[in-house]
Amino acid sequence: MDSLLTEEEKAIRESANAYCQEKLMPRVLRGWRTEEFDPAVIPEMGALGLLGPTIQGYGCAGVSNVAYGLIAREIERVDSGYRSTASVQSSLVMHPLHEFGSEAQKEKYLPRLARGEIVGAFGLTEPNHGSDPASMETTAEEVDGGFIINGSKTWISNAPVADVHVIWARCKWDNKVRGFILEKGTRGLSAPPIKNKISLRVSLTGSIFMDNVRVPQDSLLPGTKGLGSAFSCLNSARYGISWGVMGALEDCVARARSYALERVQFKRPIASFQLIQKKLAEAQSEVAIGLLASLQVGRLKDQGLLAPEMVSLVKKNNCGKALQHARSVLDILGGNAASDEYHIARHASNLQITNTYEGLSDVHALILGKAITGIQAFAN
Amino acid sequence: MDSLLTEEEKAIRESANAYCQEKLMPRVLRGWRTEEFDPAVIPEMGALGLLGPTIQGYGCAGVSNVAYGLIAREIERVDSGYRSTASVQSSLVMHPLHEFGSEAQKEKYLPRLARGEIVGAFGLTEPNHGSDPASMETTAEEVDGGFIINGSKTWISNAPVADVHVIWARCKWDNKVRGFILEKGTRGLSAPPIKNKISLRVSLTGSIFMDNVRVPQDSLLPGTKGLGSAFSCLNSARYGISWGVMGALEDCVARARSYALERVQFKRPIASFQLIQKKLAEAQSEVAIGLLASLQVGRLKDQGLLAPEMVSLVKKNNCGKALQHARSVLDILGGNAASDEYHIARHASNLQITNTYEGLSDVHALILGKAITGIQAFAN
Amino acid sequence: MDSLLTEEEKAIRESANAYCQEKLMPRVLRGWRTEEFDPAVIPEMGALGLLGPTIQGYGCAGVSNVAYGLIAREIERVDSGYRSTASVQSSLVMHPLHEFGSEAQKEKYLPRLARGEIVGAFGLTEPNHGSDPASMETTAEEVDGGFIINGSKTWISNAPVADVHVIWARCKWDNKVRGFILEKGTRGLSAPPIKNKISLRVSLTGSIFMDNVRVPQDSLLPGTKGLGSAFSCLNSARYGISWGVMGALEDCVARARSYALERVQFKRPIASFQLIQKKLAEAQSEVAIGLLASLQVGRLKDQGLLAPEMVSLVKKNNCGKALQHARSVLDILGGNAASDEYHIARHASNLQITNTYEGLSDVHALILGKAITGIQAFAN
Amino acid sequence: MDSLLTEEEKAIRESANAYCQEKLMPRVLRGWRTEEFDPAVIPEMGALGLLGPTIQGYGCAGVSNVAYGLIAREIERVDSGYRSTASVQSSLVMHPLHEFGSEAQKEKYLPRLARGEIVGAFGLTEPNHGSDPASMETTAEEVDGGFIINGSKTWISNAPVADVHVIWARCKWDNKVRGFILEKGTRGLSAPPIKNKISLRVSLTGSIFMDNVRVPQDSLLPGTKGLGSAFSCLNSARYGISWGVMGALEDCVARARSYALERVQFKRPIASFQLIQKKLAEAQSEVAIGLLASLQVGRLKDQGLLAPEMVSLVKKNNCGKALQHARSVLDILGGNAASDEYHIARHASNLQITNTYEGLSDVHALILGKAITGIQAFAN
Repeated sequence: MDSLLTEEEKAIRESANAYCQEKLMPRVLRGWRTEEFDPAVIPEMGALGLLGPTIQGYGCAGVSNVAYGLIAREIERVDSGYRSTASVQSSLVMHPLHEFGSEAQKEKYLPRLARGEIVGAFGLTEPNHGSDPASMETTAEEVDGGFIINGSKTWISNAPVADVHVIWARCKWDNKVRGFILEKGTRGLSAPPIKNKISLRVSLTGSIFMDNVRVPQDSLLPGTKGLGSAFSCLNSARYGISWGVMGALEDCVARARSYALERVQFKRPIASFQLIQKKLAEAQSEVAIGLLASLQVGRLKDQGLLAPEMVSLVKKNNCGKALQHARSVLDILGGNAASDEYHIARHASNLQITNTYEGLSDVHALILGKAITGIQAFAN
Repeated sequence: MDSLLTEEEKAIRESANAYCQEKLMPRVLRGWRTEEFDPAVIPEMGALGLLGPTIQGYGCAGVSNVAYGLIAREIERVDSGYRSTASVQSSLVMHPLHEFGSEAQKEKYLPRLARGEIVGAFGLTEPNHGSDPASMETTAEEVDGGFIINGSKTWISNAPVADVHVIWARCKWDNKVRGFILEKGTRGLSAPPIKNKISLRVSLTGSIFMDNVRVPQDSLLPGTKGLGSAFSCLNSARYGISWGVMGALEDCVARARSYALERVQFKRPIASFQLIQKKLAEAQSEVAIGLLASLQVGRLKDQGLLAPEMVSLVKKNNCGKALQHARSVLDILGGNAASDEYHIARHASNLQITNTYEGLSDVHALILGKAITGIQAFAN
Repeated sequence: MDSLLTEEEKAIRESANAYCQEKLMPRVLRGWRTEEFDPAVIPEMGALGLLGPTIQGYGCAGVSNVAYGLIAREIERVDSGYRSTASVQSSLVMHPLHEFGSEAQKEKYLPRLARGEIVGAFGLTEPNHGSDPASMETTAEEVDGGFIINGSKTWISNAPVADVHVIWARCKWDNKVRGFILEKGTRGLSAPPIKNKISLRVSLTGSIFMDNVRVPQDSLLPGTKGLGSAFSCLNSARYGISWGVMGALEDCVARARSYALERVQFKRPIASFQLIQKKLAEAQSEVAIGLLASLQVGRLKDQGLLAPEMVSLVKKNNCGKALQHARSVLDILGGNAASDEYHIARHASNLQITNTYEGLSDVHALILGKAITGIQAFAN
Repeated sequence: MDSLLTEEEKAIRESANAYCQEKLMPRVLRGWRTEEFDPAVIPEMGALGLLGPTIQGYGCAGVSNVAYGLIAREIERVDSGYRSTASVQSSLVMHPLHEFGSEAQKEKYLPRLARGEIVGAFGLTEPNHGSDPASMETTAEEVDGGFIINGSKTWISNAPVADVHVIWARCKWDNKVRGFILEKGTRGLSAPPIKNKISLRVSLTGSIFMDNVRVPQDSLLPGTKGLGSAFSCLNSARYGISWGVMGALEDCVARARSYALERVQFKRPIASFQLIQKKLAEAQSEVAIGLLASLQVGRLKDQGLLAPEMVSLVKKNNCGKALQHARSVLDILGGNAASDEYHIARHASNLQITNTYEGLSDVHALILGKAITGIQAFAN
């Protein structure tokens, strides 16, 4: 793997790794146990240039998509929740602002989002519409000097603390879906947290309720042209997830390996048992292969040669394999699997949702199935 | 299934079901979220005759092993933690007292355990010895008028609130393992809880530390003759687990089915999608087949025809299938899998440990492997 | 298992086992290599009472459905092809004659079919209609004194040597599907063999072409009333398959076990390796559990309490598990897996088709899915 | 994928593809059905430069390791047996001659092997020693002017027609394993074929018996230094296999896709069913990911940066996934899976052995396990 990275990419990885292990790792158990979001995390990431890192200018680092992937992997090596927090800020808020925003919007928001001074959220999923966003019920209506937004969104990462929400709504005047920027504190906008999660407990999740929220004309992201614009954000996020989950699985393998070398049963380290070695070997193989695939997708993305199906492929493959093998090596812990101090159970719980959000595994199978057969089967 | 049960068994099932759904179900989310053990549960179960139910006399119900299995299934339909609490009391404390205890011991403890007035724990597993209890380090030394016990145990269900501990120790005088009854409050005995579990959060788990604990002569369970006696308890518990986990999986299937019928995507209930139906069908099949197998083992147990490998088989099969399919139908929830209010993620987290405790899945594979090949491979 | 069988059932099993091991086993390799059907097999089975054994009278044995299952298991312990040959004769030809035939038809055909003097075939599947027989294209037209049948059938076991074909056709006069008896040699009827199969090579398979085949009035099976009658035959056959495939898997496990005990690598029998033991243990567990399930279905069938979904469940479960675990223990043979003299590869190839015929695994999943959800998803 | 290949590599792929589809494909069914080896195949491959293609000079093409992989993929797209024939010639005979042979040996054999004028075989595996070649029983004894070789080898591809055998033997004088060149016709050497294979039927397999075979001094491969030299050949072959099996799986996916698009059930092409699309999508994903991994290993091999564990990883991963998904898409054929004319069952049968030869899947797991844990568990 190393031989395929540039010196800059390796340096970014090292610096991300140092931050994550030294600053995030010591906080993860407390965050997991209490579900309390640590507001310092986003500014810290911003200070290191980890937010919106592929964007050129606007205070962003302007690094390669591979570097972006390496950052996601290092963050998720600690916890998928921290990585989710960062993914939303980078891929789902800064990306659409940069891609679809006006120059004024970019200058207003991007530098502050990059520094982590403000937090963003991405409102696409609705209570009744997860896999079929085309059925979206949130609406935007044109009114004198602006728009009125009505609707609700759910399972929105960062929402309860977000200063800026990128909200997707169906525009009544032409029935197209477009993105809007809603700022915290606007009348009619609320974003209560969803608590008692079983997964991603160190990140904040919430609903967004919009009751006649009135926003000015310049809250519209002018470049958004239908759901495809939203999907472009999801594809950027999914690409990062495909790297991130490999980091989580690597951490599981490393911890299971250490445990197996130290744990003695029947007078031998359990790492010497065939059944243990097979679990470790198969998990490690999927890490190696999954990272290669994401790397290749990243290089193609940098060259502008990306097809969306490639992202579906690595998202589905890496998330699925990460979940499957995190669970497999979790068994190596025996009864200690129950303790959050061994960390693998936490990763496995997180990976359940990474395998689900931004496109259920089965939905990605059908996206690929459509690419292969030419037939759409989502509603079958 | 129904056609294979006696009227008495059906009546016990109904009454257990009513109690569990009416009394336990409303408490489960709070218990899961807070890890607070509800001390009322054991007396409530006792009042209904659900504790030690296969024992004849001593205030116990004296029902069949199949009835015992049906009770476990109903309790675990709510939560594996409640079932663990009950299993320990019945199979791991009352069973050895009844099987290996003196008449005086039985009369002293069994009626109160049956009523749930007092709580029991079972101390076999040690920090360094899970799958190989033969390497046990806890010792019993004969002294004037009694014994001195030293050692420590871990991952002991009920331990922090137990009034009575059945502790297994290697006797220094002949190097054999025997069981001893240790009462709460004895000097040198402590049982601190293990918190922040990721599984079985409604049940209490603890360590047991014994520092020169002095117990009288009659604390020895006179019928215990080596580790085989402890294994007899585990086999009783494993049998109950094989029923219980099917109850948990049944609850997962029922909830996923309801969700799939109500959840509309692409304008159709997701229950109409092939990929959803396959998950439900395969899970339901394993329920039907696993229950039949446990029922058959129960009937053979009632007839005294049980071989221990049969218990390994149904324990391993049912726990493994319950875990696998609980995870599979969990995916039906999509993002709602993260919410504990949908209950399936809680079951899936619990089932990770039911698949592990009382014999790792791989250990049961090797027990069966030994039965098949005649070769012991635990240390391979 | 044994404790659940009657003395008569055990005796039937012993006699079937003796015949299969002594008479069929020595012929299986030659049959497999050459695809030559041995015409002596059916009369031999007939002489032992193995054909149509559950039928009362007409020269049939009149034994329980469990005994029928035990026979299937013993035959398939040798080869799924021999069992297919027998299943067709018993479940797909004698069963519909007995169930839906006139008294004259029964007396004419059943005794000779029972003795194996004549061979039967069952023509339902058509080249373009496997899983959806309701779209059947074969037609029956009423003409003076009889019927004219037109159409074609494919993948029909026994067809090339069949003396009697039970053919399902859509009746032009009322659009209902009914069964007809077609005798070999009728003008317009041909049944060429399908050769170069990769599976079930010891049994004969063919197509049936019917070009204006004229049959008399009494060739109609009067009791057949729509496709449901054909499905009743399939359900009978599927029940037998669920037993049979367990016999095939048992043979695989027994052979893999012997091989593993004899094969020494790294100075130890490979049966002592954990990875080998796990494969054997899991396969053996599925045998035990699958047989219990089929036994229970058989008992319910004897009591008239059978629901068709139960048959789908055991057919799908047992065929799927047999295929999966035959492949798993095949790996124990290493390179010798390639040799037909070790027999396991032959079983595995056969089981591919047993998992597919009489209802694809996925179709049974959707049958169960429909029972669970109330929604039909075959065409989704 | 394409964007990662050089123009030369793409040209080689096209030419190999054309040859394989035009010349090999029309012969494959006959070869499979009869087990008759076609002696024209090797010279044809030689004429196209497909044998020993990475070797510089000696009449070889001198192309990259990636090009070598692309050739293997195109050949195995037709049949794993043809690819096995080629792999043995290239990786197991020409490679050791080039790597470990004297200049005279290279000049004598390499050009004729490259042209396919003569055929080579590789004798390492013995009847009692598959996974543990270190226990080899074949011996070489130094005698006046040469050596005497005694022993036997089995499951040797190409052996019955080989003109040159590279035989590995333990040298009595220093107990080290070395390679020797044995020519057909030498007294005491015989190589009878193994027939009735269930896999790889278009390639020839045999045993090699050596009864006091006397060979001259210059039959010793002077560069061979212990078993490591033999393993270097296996690693070269395994690398090619990792590419080849992906070609076989690609062919399965392409055929299953076409079938699913044409096959109509319930009035719709079965390609529109979710359960079918999922199988295709998951198989296609493994193709994409497995090819990327092999490509990367090939590039590292060209740069001299290869670690043997990488080869174990891609060999195990790609063979395992090819076998698993070939079986999965085979199910799409329904009953037609039994017919060799649909080709997928043939691929699936072949892939059973590609997953096994040159290192059982479990052995590669333990090779990786050793790399991960530092503990050798082959004999566990």
